[in-house]
Amino acid sequence: MWERSLVLSAPGKVILHGEHAVVHGKVRSLLPPVEGLRSGSPAPDAASALRTRSDFDESKSPSVEQLHTLKEFAGIAAGASAPESLATLAFLYMCLAISAKYGDVPNVDILVWSELPTGAGLGSSAAYAVCLAAALLTACRAISCPLKEGESTARWTEEELTLINSWAFQGERVIHGNPSGVDNAVGTWGMYVGKEVSLVTSRVPMLRILLTNTKVPRSTKVLVAGVKEKILKFPAIMNPVLDSIDAISQECQSVLEAMPANPSPEYYPVLEELFDINQHHLNVIGVGHPSLDMLCRVTASHGLHSKLTGAGGGGCGITLLRPGLEAEGYDATKRDLCACGFECWETNIGAPGVTLHSSSSLNAEVLHALSES
Amino acid sequence: MWERSLVLSAPGKVILHGEHAVVHGKVRSLLPPVEGLRSGSPAPDAASALRTRSDFDESKSPSVEQLHTLKEFAGIAAGASAPESLATLAFLYMCLAISAKYGDVPNVDILVWSELPTGAGLGSSAAYAVCLAAALLTACRAISCPLKEGESTARWTEEELTLINSWAFQGERVIHGNPSGVDNAVGTWGMYVGKEVSLVTSRVPMLRILLTNTKVPRSTKVLVAGVKEKILKFPAIMNPVLDSIDAISQECQSVLEAMPANPSPEYYPVLEELFDINQHHLNVIGVGHPSLDMLCRVTASHGLHSKLTGAGGGGCGITLLRPGLEAEGYDATKRDLCACGFECWETNIGAPGVTLHSSSSLNAEVLHALSES
Repeated sequence: MWERSLVLSAPGKVILHGEHAVVHGKVRSLLPPVEGLRSGSPAPDAASALRTRSDFDESKSPSVEQLHTLKEFAGIAAGASAPESLATLAFLYMCLAISAKYGDVPNVDILVWSELPTGAGLGSSAAYAVCLAAALLTACRAISCPLKEGESTARWTEEELTLINSWAFQGERVIHGNPSGVDNAVGTWGMYVGKEVSLVTSRVPMLRILLTNTKVPRSTKVLVAGVKEKILKFPAIMNPVLDSIDAISQECQSVLEAMPANPSPEYYPVLEELFDINQHHLNVIGVGHPSLDMLCRVTASHGLHSKLTGAGGGGCGITLLRPGLEAEGYDATKRDLCACGFECWETNIGAPGVTLHSSSSLNAEVLHALSES
Repeated sequence: MWERSLVLSAPGKVILHGEHAVVHGKVRSLLPPVEGLRSGSPAPDAASALRTRSDFDESKSPSVEQLHTLKEFAGIAAGASAPESLATLAFLYMCLAISAKYGDVPNVDILVWSELPTGAGLGSSAAYAVCLAAALLTACRAISCPLKEGESTARWTEEELTLINSWAFQGERVIHGNPSGVDNAVGTWGMYVGKEVSLVTSRVPMLRILLTNTKVPRSTKVLVAGVKEKILKFPAIMNPVLDSIDAISQECQSVLEAMPANPSPEYYPVLEELFDINQHHLNVIGVGHPSLDMLCRVTASHGLHSKLTGAGGGGCGITLLRPGLEAEGYDATKRDLCACGFECWETNIGAPGVTLHSSSSLNAEVLHALSES
């Protein structure tokens, strides 16, 4: 019987630079975690009832048979793709598999609250899976509970984070089939750089960004195929562009590493220049969209620099908010973006990965959201 | 005594692809001639009076002393930069130098009429110098007069064109100091490809383009320096972009060579795509301008594709006009561009170089312009 309450959060992600380049053989993409947009998963004393031991391991993909059995158990239709169905399935799989490997997960109540919009390429499913993995592994004592009396937040050891990440990846596999593993790495550690899961665990400066959803639906699969087609059609023109995108990720990483934790405005022009260059490159490889051009134009009219983030072809864009940006300019930018039918959130990049929180440290907004559930 | 009348024309140039790349070590730029925009130079019987023999040769740059003497003779101030002053100086130099080398140029009247705006990067001075060189060399019989009775146009042999080009280059040197030699090569031969004066003398398909002057003044020197600075600042990001621009020139050249003389619309999407990609690249290397963005946006709203041509930072843009483009769409595009304060001319690229015309073949517009002079 687990009698404590665990409050966890994990960040979503934005791709700062390197989208598409990674898919087509380039090494780098730069994905800082998004703070403020987190999934929280408090897990107090209660009941769960899944007890079928089986062949579960964090190194093996969930099998078709396992998922079929779980869907039958939960009454989820074979082809169901609603976020709620997939989230339930991932929970069942992880709970069962972690119990099988580390001993029974005690009866728990799981309460999930998320600020991340789903299906916007912001890693909401990974943030969910990371929180769930950390909560379940902690509840069955596979990893420690690092939060000490009087502390408001705590994180796990590197070894424990590696275990959390591999189980979160299992959850992502249940939800997405064949995920890259990038999103759960960001949710677990924070910053992610590289094709292989090589991580920048060093301090990342806190950058304010405005995240804007154009609400233009797009298919990542179609966009990736389009980029591939362009590369095959014009290899001598397109391959250098991928090289340049790769170099932008490296340059941005160097700039971020050289920046102090609370950077002054003088560091921003180069970050803004890299945003502009990359946005042009993303248009060249064919993943731009008139809605994203509009987004860039609107923010440029307020002196701010934007680029698409993720697959492109619509979806989300990010705008760098300089320190010292006046409230008036910020409000006007948001108002103009909303007038285009877009939705905006302000957030910070450079937040830590999965974190354990004391109940007393939660802010009023989160407490309100949790009490309403 | 020269008793015939010679009517000559030479085309201006647009840079189709490769601006700036050539300056920074890349081999290719693609500069087709611009038809319709021509300098005409009829040279009938009359008088000129420059008779100082001196050390003149088409292989030697005009010396400071020679130019000083000519300025004194013509009453042109030392630092004069008005097109009229420079044009007079170039004429005096060429007339004197050609007389010195090939025997006296007979007394001639020179009448110059041009459709090319000056100072817009369209090679107007080169078209002028090419016409002048061809007229003077023909008048003093250094080259033949290829126009036969009953023919409406004629061109010189390859050897004669080479001589015309080298004397036109002398005229360009008088006007510009240290010109690249590209503009006079286009004026002489038509198509130009490459850093070295390697020429595509083969047939080039006739393409309709709209040439738009944003009227935003810019300094080529400042723009070139800005590109250099960007390359030094971000070599790993910028050098691949120059490679890509180079590849665009090559790809475009291949497409043009594969096109029939009067290409059908199916050839256009790839040319349009190359325009779009290159325009993004030119923005990346820092030679874009809001006026050029506006130009591209206006034409895109009519389904047409544009890019800047020349140094950028304002100046001119070119828009590809598809065959079968309806008059309505064309008129609306022109109207919208003019509403931005821009000036447009329709022209063709792929015209021949310097050409001799029979007086009877001139169209009414040209005859009218000449009769008014």
